[in-house]
Amino acid sequence: MSCGRPVHVENPHLDTLKDDILYHFSLGTGTHDLPAMFGDVKFVCVGGSPTRMKAFIEYIACVLGMEDPKSEYPNICAGTDRYVMYKIGPVLSVNHGMGVSSIAIMLHELIKLLHHARCTDVTIIRIGTSGGIGLEPGTVVVTKQPLDDTLQPRYAQVILGKTVVRNTDLDQSLAEELLQCSKELNQFETVIGNTMCTLDFYEGQARLDGAFCQYTEKDKQDYLRKVKDAEICNIEMESTVFAAMCKMSGLRAAVVCVTLLDRLKGDQLTSSHECLVSYGERPQILVGYYIKKQLKAKAAAK
Amino acid sequence: MSCGRPVHVENPHLDTLKDDILYHFSLGTGTHDLPAMFGDVKFVCVGGSPTRMKAFIEYIACVLGMEDPKSEYPNICAGTDRYVMYKIGPVLSVNHGMGVSSIAIMLHELIKLLHHARCTDVTIIRIGTSGGIGLEPGTVVVTKQPLDDTLQPRYAQVILGKTVVRNTDLDQSLAEELLQCSKELNQFETVIGNTMCTLDFYEGQARLDGAFCQYTEKDKQDYLRKVKDAEICNIEMESTVFAAMCKMSGLRAAVVCVTLLDRLKGDQLTSSHECLVSYGERPQILVGYYIKKQLKAKAAAK
Repeated sequence: MSCGRPVHVENPHLDTLKDDILYHFSLGTGTHDLPAMFGDVKFVCVGGSPTRMKAFIEYIACVLGMEDPKSEYPNICAGTDRYVMYKIGPVLSVNHGMGVSSIAIMLHELIKLLHHARCTDVTIIRIGTSGGIGLEPGTVVVTKQPLDDTLQPRYAQVILGKTVVRNTDLDQSLAEELLQCSKELNQFETVIGNTMCTLDFYEGQARLDGAFCQYTEKDKQDYLRKVKDAEICNIEMESTVFAAMCKMSGLRAAVVCVTLLDRLKGDQLTSSHECLVSYGERPQILVGYYIKKQLKAKAAAK
Repeated sequence: MSCGRPVHVENPHLDTLKDDILYHFSLGTGTHDLPAMFGDVKFVCVGGSPTRMKAFIEYIACVLGMEDPKSEYPNICAGTDRYVMYKIGPVLSVNHGMGVSSIAIMLHELIKLLHHARCTDVTIIRIGTSGGIGLEPGTVVVTKQPLDDTLQPRYAQVILGKTVVRNTDLDQSLAEELLQCSKELNQFETVIGNTMCTLDFYEGQARLDGAFCQYTEKDKQDYLRKVKDAEICNIEMESTVFAAMCKMSGLRAAVVCVTLLDRLKGDQLTSSHECLVSYGERPQILVGYYIKKQLKAKAAAK
């Protein structure tokens, strides 16, 4: 038995369930041996795009020298089209779609999965894309604090009709370790800063190019200046609920997003497809380096 | 030139864009001839699951006698993995992922697409799945009014840091026409009722089986009784923003969701996979019948 840090579920009702069906993963305690399938997981990487999370598992297999040229990496959630999931050694890669609601469904089921599998000492990192604030496109931002769209460090959600406010603190030592890894890698600019999480990509992020826009260029710039004054380096759509849920479950968590454009200079993603793809690989490279370094240190300590 | 009802974009800035990149569709005005590709679209069907929206275009091709046994239906958004899109004749099928944020990104770009393509007289229907309130599983609900998680008929969103409240009225005559179609079909139970839209699937819908649950079975039942008293027939995660955005753009809109379980009796989706798949086809069958009837009536009027 391991005596490491477990994954908490704060739900007394779960013990009364005969089976627990993780519907959106097409997995369950009655149909799958979750401890055998996932008990050795130590790192979980999540991101919006299913293709990116498949690419990540291929990349990490290569980084860890665990690739098998004869085998494809099977999608563990092949029974559903809601999410994809891949695993290699101690690393799990899961996609979460776009927005707080989509990632929250995935995280409820992921946290239960890790709990049922009796995983310990799990680190979870969101690797994503974002809009930067005053940064050169391609800069990687490691999140210090996720803020909501009113610039508050919280995630507010309605439960039984009443608003419940949750803390969005991330693991600061993990953020510092990731920044240190980026220095060692020395391949691209990485900064630590606050991240704003919005419900909407267009009006919610003060873009001028949505189907609706009832404000002026000046209103937009005034708002983005306030955003910058709150030491926000980038804007995305999942970090607050990710931080809140990981904190509640005792997961060591970080958010690492590349910026695809500088929102102070524009709204549309006009860079070439190749350029955007290359930027999108940067969080993977950073997190791959971090995981390899951690595993090496652990092996050396044995 | 058609003189029908156009699709409104309420955004003076769009005219100043040289090209408009619909990033999450991997389409754009500079790279694609949108009027040629989409100008004849009269019906748009949207749903969460990409597989279901592919199945829908195959089904509708068969219903309309437009199937080509030699050809696959190509995914028009093959350049991205964010959404899928299929088209056959005047019918467009697009998936939207899960939650208000995910569907809002899709709708911003869809509304701009229909506008750029100069489409007129477009009807849009969300075909989805939901949890029922006091209904036999498999019942189809045509939404009268979408309500938010505080039981208000509104969609509240933050724009430039301030809350903006939008109306969630749907087209009542379209809802009645869909109910009439269900009577003519006579294959499954269909009702008209209010729909609650939540940000979260677990705690947000008073489920007892999420990773976190800090309320009792009695709290849950008390809350669901309030939900039932508001004449809510089902709970899903997209209807408020869907109704709000369609209303703003002048699209004739309806929400047709099947209920996969009765939330007054449980939380987990314990029905067999086959049974859930069969329920999931019901909104497709109803909307397929409606589209065929509309096209027949239009052809007869010519």
